[in-house]
Amino acid sequence: MPSTNLTFADAAAHRRWLETQCAPLPKGFRVGTARFDFTPVEAPKPARMTLTLVALDAPTPDFAAVFTKNAFPGAPVIVGRSRVAAGGALGALLINNKVSNVCAPGGVADSERLCAGAAAALGIAPEQVLPCSTGVIGWKLPVETMLAALPAAAASLDAASALPAAEGIVTTDLYPKARRASLRSGATIVAFAKGAGMIEPNLATMLAFILTDAAVPRAALREMLPRVVAESFNAISIDGDTSTSDTVALVAGGRVAQPDLGEFEDALRRVCRDLAEDIVRNGEGVRHVIRVSVSGAPSFESARALGKAVVNAPLFKCAVAGNDPNVGRLVQAVGKFAGAGGFEAAGCAAPDLSRLRATLGGIEIFAAGAFRLDPAKEERLARHMRDAELYASRPDASGFYAPPARFPAHERAVEVGLELFAGDASATVTGADLTHEYVCENADYRS
Amino acid sequence: MPSTNLTFADAAAHRRWLETQCAPLPKGFRVGTARFDFTPVEAPKPARMTLTLVALDAPTPDFAAVFTKNAFPGAPVIVGRSRVAAGGALGALLINNKVSNVCAPGGVADSERLCAGAAAALGIAPEQVLPCSTGVIGWKLPVETMLAALPAAAASLDAASALPAAEGIVTTDLYPKARRASLRSGATIVAFAKGAGMIEPNLATMLAFILTDAAVPRAALREMLPRVVAESFNAISIDGDTSTSDTVALVAGGRVAQPDLGEFEDALRRVCRDLAEDIVRNGEGVRHVIRVSVSGAPSFESARALGKAVVNAPLFKCAVAGNDPNVGRLVQAVGKFAGAGGFEAAGCAAPDLSRLRATLGGIEIFAAGAFRLDPAKEERLARHMRDAELYASRPDASGFYAPPARFPAHERAVEVGLELFAGDASATVTGADLTHEYVCENADYRS
Repeated sequence: MPSTNLTFADAAAHRRWLETQCAPLPKGFRVGTARFDFTPVEAPKPARMTLTLVALDAPTPDFAAVFTKNAFPGAPVIVGRSRVAAGGALGALLINNKVSNVCAPGGVADSERLCAGAAAALGIAPEQVLPCSTGVIGWKLPVETMLAALPAAAASLDAASALPAAEGIVTTDLYPKARRASLRSGATIVAFAKGAGMIEPNLATMLAFILTDAAVPRAALREMLPRVVAESFNAISIDGDTSTSDTVALVAGGRVAQPDLGEFEDALRRVCRDLAEDIVRNGEGVRHVIRVSVSGAPSFESARALGKAVVNAPLFKCAVAGNDPNVGRLVQAVGKFAGAGGFEAAGCAAPDLSRLRATLGGIEIFAAGAFRLDPAKEERLARHMRDAELYASRPDASGFYAPPARFPAHERAVEVGLELFAGDASATVTGADLTHEYVCENADYRS
Repeated sequence: MPSTNLTFADAAAHRRWLETQCAPLPKGFRVGTARFDFTPVEAPKPARMTLTLVALDAPTPDFAAVFTKNAFPGAPVIVGRSRVAAGGALGALLINNKVSNVCAPGGVADSERLCAGAAAALGIAPEQVLPCSTGVIGWKLPVETMLAALPAAAASLDAASALPAAEGIVTTDLYPKARRASLRSGATIVAFAKGAGMIEPNLATMLAFILTDAAVPRAALREMLPRVVAESFNAISIDGDTSTSDTVALVAGGRVAQPDLGEFEDALRRVCRDLAEDIVRNGEGVRHVIRVSVSGAPSFESARALGKAVVNAPLFKCAVAGNDPNVGRLVQAVGKFAGAGGFEAAGCAAPDLSRLRATLGGIEIFAAGAFRLDPAKEERLARHMRDAELYASRPDASGFYAPPARFPAHERAVEVGLELFAGDASATVTGADLTHEYVCENADYRS
């Protein structure tokens, strides 16, 4: 990851590239939005919400979805699971930001009322609408205001570009995130996502929507999506938190024949991996993307779990933030994972760690049970980390740290390699550093 | 925790109280230190180390120790485990800060050479010395310089107070940490620790030393210590990281008869709990201690694991730092733990979470599957968090955040209650917020 290696000189360049990813929509899809102000009952201050509608020209039986594993799922996730289980067709997605509708009294009934409202505006059945909400956990949705805004969203439906939807679903994201793939059949995949995933379970959550005009049967979609998600959206972590609303939905409108399902799955995987990394790169306060490649592992699950343990180790994350090649903290994280039974929990025997070989930026730092360090190597390691920095960290006059730019400068990462010599499996996990910008964003963003 | 409820007006008041905890040492113990400069080969800049010696008047067979579970333990941990297993007597502890001797080439031989040097200075056998090192992971110990400093440490041995040792072992700690207990027999326990535990695996680690003149047989010590550690040092977490050098050693010199082992264990538990909380309170960048009390759990292990999941959830930690009663993040952490199979991993069935009752500062915030929030309650919750703040967070002119005082202002905490209604077990876990001070300390403290 990613399959591209882009750099952007400024926000305008990034925007031009985004437009090429978003336009046009796959055949048979249109998106529309409506934006309005409301006052949450729980915190009586003005707030702004965008309602985003994705409509199909004709409902399709071919869709799949993957949801959060959090034991307190949001009401839209409960409703969404019932849509997937019911076996019916899907005609629209209805998405709102700002309020996630999680454990709010009457949340499921609220979600169903909104689906009915959208269905009435589109002339389809309520159970053909998949609802998604992202935002503050615990607040109630402003249902009446949302219902009143639905006709405006429906009236703005347009097939030109996914960009209004990619922009409509964001919360604290600095910029919209979208990726496109083209298939030999002439079909396309357009996918867009909001972060910052597990990184912001308050303004919950990660949402990703993948639209295609390729005709792919429901059974194939539902088999592929979990497989692809396992190595894309489920192989990233900003802070280890798991949102109550995470949803990845894949909808195949079926307007273009797609004889080669292998080609489709490859394109789906590429889009999902790229979009997953886009989410990390635009994670709250992220200044370095960290990519951990675990190889020689007994299983994919154990490799991914070890990679996540590394990208979630706070002291290693802090060291990366400071461009400090503090490799002791990296090895500490591996040792903690193994010592706490991490391999066994992933279903396999712990490998012999005396064989571990660790690299940073391709440079060997640990082998055969001992560190391999010297002052010259330390300087090369620090340079690798500085090269992967997205922006320099500077506080304003009051000590507040915020990212200075609203676009990704490049797609480089701090590259960690862990070779276990204990099997054939591998996994790549993408994470991020722990920064002042993250603390500023999350210590008091509501006030 | 803690068994006391102290407040300190200033550093001098804290110091006076510390002196009462440290002096005198239990009968039969003396401590001495030596301080010197050296240059690490891996990073050629001047560094300072303190060597601390704890000597018994006569070696004792009665000692116990608990070590880190990290799969890359430091060389002193490897040597220490062999001391415990060998069945011999213990005559001294030899402790150094600054370099942890973890995975450094020749580390075990270095540790053994230092033990032999200390033994020669004290007239005991090398295998009667327990070595402990804390500091940067991956660096080699400056063995020759340390051997040269040993006579000075031995010459300074004194029975007056544990304070020189409590001061000698610290790294980034803001102040020394010590606790005392008196037994009806006239015996005493004096314990001291350095942090900041799992919070600083680079300047690794948490070390705690518990000295007593009570005569308690080795078998009883080795049975008690893991039990007491499980609910004290193993029920705290600053950042979830596990140091490669964590060691808790308990040494009973045997000069005072101790017929009541139950009384001894109670006192030991009190001292260990208080010292564990002292470590959290003086954790790097800690501005709020968070105490999570889980009750109605199916087992102690599951209760403790759930409590740790809450105190390790980055977004909840950030919210506490900002005195922001963002209880959605608290419930998210519980849901993530349960959804990821946390109860099953702790060996029991997941309880019915629709019964969960959660409190913050004793105020109900969640019950029967829904939040219980209103603006007035939010204000009370924020006040509870502000009351538990240890100091106000203020950057200096360059944007650097550091604690303004080197003593603990009070022993209050942000109190989280989680009642599961699923059994009789309970656990209390102590953790801390995630602050700018933590990031400043850990993003580049070596530079």
